[in-house]
Amino acid sequence: MRYSKLFGKVSKTVSKQAIVASHRFLVQGGFIRRISSGRYAFLPLGLRVRRKVENMIRQEMVKIGAQELVVPTLHPIELWQQANRDQKFGPSMMRLKDRRGAEFTLGATAEVMMVELVKQFNLSYKDLPINIFQFSQKFRDEVRASGALLRTREFIMKDGYSFHVDEDSLKQTYQLYWQAYLNIAKQLDLEVTVVESDNGAIGGMISHEFMVETDVGEDVLAKCDCGYSANLETAKFVRKQVNPDEKPKKMEIVSQPEWVMTMEDNVKHYGKSKDHFLKNVVYKDIDGTIIIGVIRGDLSVNKTKLANVYGAKGELEPATDEDLAKLGTKFGWVHCWGHKAVYVGDLSLKTVVNFIGGQKEKDTDSINVNYGRDFECDFFGDIAEAEAGAICGQCNKGKLRLVKCVEFGNIFNIGYTYSQAMDANFIDQDNHQQKFYMGSYGIGLGRAMACVIETHHDDKGIIWPKSITPYHVHLVYLNSSDPTVLGKAEQVYQDLQKADIEVLFDDRPDVSAGSKFADADLIGIPVRLLISQRSLDKGGLELKYRHSSESELIPISDLSKVILDFYKK
Amino acid sequence: MRYSKLFGKVSKTVSKQAIVASHRFLVQGGFIRRISSGRYAFLPLGLRVRRKVENMIRQEMVKIGAQELVVPTLHPIELWQQANRDQKFGPSMMRLKDRRGAEFTLGATAEVMMVELVKQFNLSYKDLPINIFQFSQKFRDEVRASGALLRTREFIMKDGYSFHVDEDSLKQTYQLYWQAYLNIAKQLDLEVTVVESDNGAIGGMISHEFMVETDVGEDVLAKCDCGYSANLETAKFVRKQVNPDEKPKKMEIVSQPEWVMTMEDNVKHYGKSKDHFLKNVVYKDIDGTIIIGVIRGDLSVNKTKLANVYGAKGELEPATDEDLAKLGTKFGWVHCWGHKAVYVGDLSLKTVVNFIGGQKEKDTDSINVNYGRDFECDFFGDIAEAEAGAICGQCNKGKLRLVKCVEFGNIFNIGYTYSQAMDANFIDQDNHQQKFYMGSYGIGLGRAMACVIETHHDDKGIIWPKSITPYHVHLVYLNSSDPTVLGKAEQVYQDLQKADIEVLFDDRPDVSAGSKFADADLIGIPVRLLISQRSLDKGGLELKYRHSSESELIPISDLSKVILDFYKK
Repeated sequence: MRYSKLFGKVSKTVSKQAIVASHRFLVQGGFIRRISSGRYAFLPLGLRVRRKVENMIRQEMVKIGAQELVVPTLHPIELWQQANRDQKFGPSMMRLKDRRGAEFTLGATAEVMMVELVKQFNLSYKDLPINIFQFSQKFRDEVRASGALLRTREFIMKDGYSFHVDEDSLKQTYQLYWQAYLNIAKQLDLEVTVVESDNGAIGGMISHEFMVETDVGEDVLAKCDCGYSANLETAKFVRKQVNPDEKPKKMEIVSQPEWVMTMEDNVKHYGKSKDHFLKNVVYKDIDGTIIIGVIRGDLSVNKTKLANVYGAKGELEPATDEDLAKLGTKFGWVHCWGHKAVYVGDLSLKTVVNFIGGQKEKDTDSINVNYGRDFECDFFGDIAEAEAGAICGQCNKGKLRLVKCVEFGNIFNIGYTYSQAMDANFIDQDNHQQKFYMGSYGIGLGRAMACVIETHHDDKGIIWPKSITPYHVHLVYLNSSDPTVLGKAEQVYQDLQKADIEVLFDDRPDVSAGSKFADADLIGIPVRLLISQRSLDKGGLELKYRHSSESELIPISDLSKVILDFYKK
Repeated sequence: MRYSKLFGKVSKTVSKQAIVASHRFLVQGGFIRRISSGRYAFLPLGLRVRRKVENMIRQEMVKIGAQELVVPTLHPIELWQQANRDQKFGPSMMRLKDRRGAEFTLGATAEVMMVELVKQFNLSYKDLPINIFQFSQKFRDEVRASGALLRTREFIMKDGYSFHVDEDSLKQTYQLYWQAYLNIAKQLDLEVTVVESDNGAIGGMISHEFMVETDVGEDVLAKCDCGYSANLETAKFVRKQVNPDEKPKKMEIVSQPEWVMTMEDNVKHYGKSKDHFLKNVVYKDIDGTIIIGVIRGDLSVNKTKLANVYGAKGELEPATDEDLAKLGTKFGWVHCWGHKAVYVGDLSLKTVVNFIGGQKEKDTDSINVNYGRDFECDFFGDIAEAEAGAICGQCNKGKLRLVKCVEFGNIFNIGYTYSQAMDANFIDQDNHQQKFYMGSYGIGLGRAMACVIETHHDDKGIIWPKSITPYHVHLVYLNSSDPTVLGKAEQVYQDLQKADIEVLFDDRPDVSAGSKFADADLIGIPVRLLISQRSLDKGGLELKYRHSSESELIPISDLSKVILDFYKK
């Protein structure tokens, strides 16, 4: 490709919102352009990279026996309703009606479509397992789009789905995807941490996320030196016993000055650390149910953990003043028992003898409150968010570190969630109808590109890994009074292409060497070749690798071999 | 691919709506499946074909210097409004709002997005022309979806766009696309007729459609032996002079029996042929304007021609009883002059001396009405639909034939339509802002597949052209008591693949020869190879071309060469 002809060249200006490296370099380098918030055009350079990511993923999918197909983008809403998923996804699902009044949602994920499709074939156990995947546009109306391709509202995803006779069969395919995802990450030169995670709106039994550590990530991992890692929605940690030697005392209502409102006020008034107090956090489910999370004062409630212990119908929202008024209370005065609400207690409630708090009124509160004796919650489990320094829940020794990361891919064991709701069956050996056991598996292509750049750049621009560089070689030609230099440059350009080397040829006659080098660094192709009067006088072209600051002179006759060898490595 | 493992095998049953061959064979052959009306899943076989179509088109685009990119699927509605296109597209455009209230349309075509993108680069005349294209999902809420892939509501389209300094530059690129589309049709083994056509909702100066003749087509072409062809929206024909020797008489209001209502009644009452009468057809524009088309009684108004002569704001709708009541009249009593409406007259008004009609009331009408003397229309031009047997408007001799066809592709000279409305400029040599001159170019991938099947099938199934066959070879293995036959079959399957031949291997042990042959004929791969005890005893495999009924014995050692030679031809 002649750079002079390329649509979408480098640009100096970039939006002030482009704080993260991948956002800045993708826009400045001419890879993408924003059209509206969270929606980007892929320019020729960017599309080349994305297609390389796509082809590489496709190859890994084919290796594990997955078959490619594609379902429509508009999903009939009835299918989502059948599977009880329309509420779970909530407002991030975009909906519309056609001119005949039929309602659709724009595919955010495609489990229901794949189930509907597979149902049409009346399969038997002999046809199973089935492993199918697609590359298709996904739509998620994120509350906040950020970091260009890191979190968009419209993106191409490779989504795979598998159908099995039972969980044992699923586990084999799940393992194949796990390995395929590791292979994909390796080819992208990404270090991933695989963590067990919450299935969220997809539903099902268990899932794993493939995480890439980077400071710009919006997810947080808890990691221990013992090897344990988990995201905050599942991270297990040990709650210390606060005062195991203390004897339970009789619960009392005590007077309390009116100025005692916050946890800090309590600490000041009672002279005890936060972990001696009871704390409530109030949420509302989509069906209106009020959920009160009860937890030790030094810990915070993790909303997803809470939702899972309770079994929420949809995404929980913080309760409003109105919601509390309906309960006959207000913020700060919520009781740990007695309201018309569902109470969900954290494991930490069993780590304190003689809690302070629980029944706060204007100028009274309760003390010496003991869980199990004075109150019990409807549900009880792990609803607390792990903090840095907490004791690892796996080895019970190490301290958890919290690291920022981006979710690069995920695999879900979704069990019978969809097949039961949608009555999707196969015929077993005894000629009986049985429900499919299912898995689902996703990787977003744009986010993979962003992850690569976040972990492969310097202050001048991108440093693409070989596998997805837009071109193999950035050939820079410096204008010369001697017209034979251009002729040689043209010849090199043609010869390299004949050797199946992809070349971006900066043939602009009126741009300075400095500008051309800066552009090449920004675009980030691993190999830069410089052809000039001077290099030819010295007997060849100057080759510089993007990751290095040294350059070396290569005779024209050796060029193809040197480059092909580099890419073979 | 082992057929036993393929997801989406042939199926006997097919919906009763599958009347056309491509619909029936695509569904029965396991290429596509309907999910909802006008929306189809592409199964692995179908996706392979579509991807071959895509890759072939991509190659032709690259040959003419077009650069691939892709814009978002959701277009901000403001861009469509800027370009005054939202009304033009009307209800076939699907719309939705996001959670923040921003309104989008699902891309039906992408001119506005491309203009918005190109505007971001502040281009100069040196950067022009620009020729860019994408493959992307398009959404059109058709009133009626039909014939599976012939007319869907969701489809992948290759849409190209070009930006120029002036029309001369556009014409060069237009010609390149024209040739590229002919090349694409040739590789699909499609005979196309290129016709000038109306630009419709896309807007602009002139356009050409690439038409494939087939009885299942919903478009109609007028063709003459002189080589002229046009669709009915533009087809020119000669209006004969009905009574050139008659002298104009004085216009009169005459009494007329009340039973004279229709054109047939008039013919009966006056004893004159239809071409002596005046006829009105009444439409309404999207802004409420009433348009009355006035035409000779033997001809019909073509709505698109009428809209173009008038310059309609959106799609014209037939006027309702209410609309006529507002004009102070009713159906059958509309006058050729005097109503508060825009009158558009057809060329045929100048071919009759002493028209009958024009001012019908309950029991009177006017006679001896002459255009130009007694009344004149606000607009005057070609608004009549060409009929079979009409005299060709190009050679003025031949008679037009009407043939059914499908629009396979189209190219539009859209001029300044978008750049003016959206203020899209480049800097010219004198450093002045100038508007881009534009073109736009489309081919639908699914419809191309349907066109191929409609013109390439027999009663048993599809006969794929070499260029887009899902596999090169359909290898059929017949079960045998001798286990070495299966071993040989496996060997052939592996060897052919090593020679880069794509093989669909029907390895099912429990299916009869007859069923396997029927499946192979339905799927339509050009080469079928049969391996059986018998063929091996005779010294090889039986090769049968899908287009022929003969088979020949090929020694195993010659197989790859015979097949590669066939595909090279």
